[in-house]
Amino acid sequence: MSAAIEVMRHHRSIRKFTEQPLSAEQREAIMASAQAASSSSFLQASAVIRITDPELRAKVMALCGDQAYIGTAAEFWVFCADFHRHLQWVPEARTGFAEQLLIGAIDTALMGQNAMTAAESLGLGGVFIGAVRNQPHALCELLALPRGVVPLFGLCLGYPAQDPEPKPRLPASLMFVENRYPARFDDARMQGYDEQVRQYYRTRTGGNKEMTWTGQIGETLVKEARPFMLEFLREQGFCLR
Amino acid sequence: MSAAIEVMRHHRSIRKFTEQPLSAEQREAIMASAQAASSSSFLQASAVIRITDPELRAKVMALCGDQAYIGTAAEFWVFCADFHRHLQWVPEARTGFAEQLLIGAIDTALMGQNAMTAAESLGLGGVFIGAVRNQPHALCELLALPRGVVPLFGLCLGYPAQDPEPKPRLPASLMFVENRYPARFDDARMQGYDEQVRQYYRTRTGGNKEMTWTGQIGETLVKEARPFMLEFLREQGFCLR
Repeated sequence: MSAAIEVMRHHRSIRKFTEQPLSAEQREAIMASAQAASSSSFLQASAVIRITDPELRAKVMALCGDQAYIGTAAEFWVFCADFHRHLQWVPEARTGFAEQLLIGAIDTALMGQNAMTAAESLGLGGVFIGAVRNQPHALCELLALPRGVVPLFGLCLGYPAQDPEPKPRLPASLMFVENRYPARFDDARMQGYDEQVRQYYRTRTGGNKEMTWTGQIGETLVKEARPFMLEFLREQGFCLR
Repeated sequence: MSAAIEVMRHHRSIRKFTEQPLSAEQREAIMASAQAASSSSFLQASAVIRITDPELRAKVMALCGDQAYIGTAAEFWVFCADFHRHLQWVPEARTGFAEQLLIGAIDTALMGQNAMTAAESLGLGGVFIGAVRNQPHALCELLALPRGVVPLFGLCLGYPAQDPEPKPRLPASLMFVENRYPARFDDARMQGYDEQVRQYYRTRTGGNKEMTWTGQIGETLVKEARPFMLEFLREQGFCLR
C-alpha cells in the first residue's frame, strides 16, 4: 500500500552481516528518523550510545550473552532512557517517578523503531538486543552511564548476509480487540496459530525444531525474568516513587 | 533517501481531523505493520483496544484530559502492555517482574511507532495520547482491562485537517554520543537549540509564545509526574519484584 508499509511488513531480525560499513549519510538519516519520533511532553528523554571502539564493543558483547552479531554488525547502538541530561540544565527537576520510566521506555522505543525502519528502508537489516539488560550494572560502568540513565535495548545494524523469512505474528483478532478487553481469547484461533508457528519452525530448521507459540512462551515465562531489574532501576534513580 | 525516511522525518502530531473514516484496508495495513515490529523473546506482550463505541469514546476522552481530538479522530486505539493473555494458555507463567514491564512498554511502543509510520505513509496523521495514564484505574474499569494489562498510550488517527511544521529536535550531538556517556553535554549547543525552539514557537504562535526547550522541560519536571503510577502498576501486577 506504501513503500514504508512494505518495509515494515517485511521486517525480520538480521543477525548475520557483511563487512560493509554504513555511510555517514545513512547514519545521519537513521538518526534523524529516530529523533523525529514523538516525544512525551517534548522531554526527549533518551540517549543513544554508539559503540565504535572495537575493544569496548567486545566487552559489551561479553556482557550481552556473547551474541556474535554485536561484534560483527557495522553499527551497534545502545538506546537508553535518560533523565540525567535534563538535570544539567534543570537541576531542580524531580525525577524517580515510575511514570518517568514509562515515558523513557516508550519514547526511546519509538525512536528505536524508527531507526530500524529507516535502516531497513535503505536495504540494511538489524536486530534489537534486549541482552543489554543482562548485566546492567557492568554495562553502566563500561559506558559511564550515570544515575538517571537506564540502558533499554541495543540495535545492531548492517548489510544483511542472510535472508530469513518474517515470523508469523499472532492473528490480529488475538491482539486487536474492540471497545473492551475480552473475558477470554478464542482458543481455536490460538490453536490455529500454534500450528502455523510449528510449521514455520519446521520449515526453517528442516524439521529439527518443533515448537508452538504457547510452548515457546511457556518455556520463557516459567523462568524468572531478570529478577535484579527492579533493584537496578532503583539504583539508577527510576521507580523510586 | 527513501520514502519511509521521508515519511518519518516529516512527522508532526496531528490534532485536527476531517470526518473521513479509514478504510478497512488501511486499518488492516496499519495493524499488520504494527504487529510486524520485533517482539522480545517473541512474547508479543501487547494488546490494542480500538474504541469504536461513541459513548465509550466520550467517556475515555473525559478520562484523558478531555482532549477533543480523542473524540473527533476517525480511529482511537489504546495500546497496552499485556501479560494477562499469556496466562490463558500458560497458567503457570511467572509475572510481576519489573523486567516484564520494560518488555511490555518497549515492545508495545515499537508497535505503536510502526502504526504511526504506516498511517502517515498513507497520507493520514496521528497523535499519541499519554493522557490514557491520567486516570488509569477508571480507564481499566471502562475497558475491562484485567490485572496483567497496563494502558500505556493512545493513538488518534485520521485524515489531517491541519498542516503544522515539524518541531525542531535536540541537535544530534546532544542525543547520540560515542562509546561513553559524557561528563557534561555542550552548553553552547544547548543554548543554540534553545534559541531555535524559541524561534519555532514565536513563528508558530505569531509571537504569543516565548519558550525555550530548557524552559519548557523545567516547567514539566518541577512538577510531580503522575505520582500514583507506581501503585497503579503494582495493582495491575507489574513491578512487584
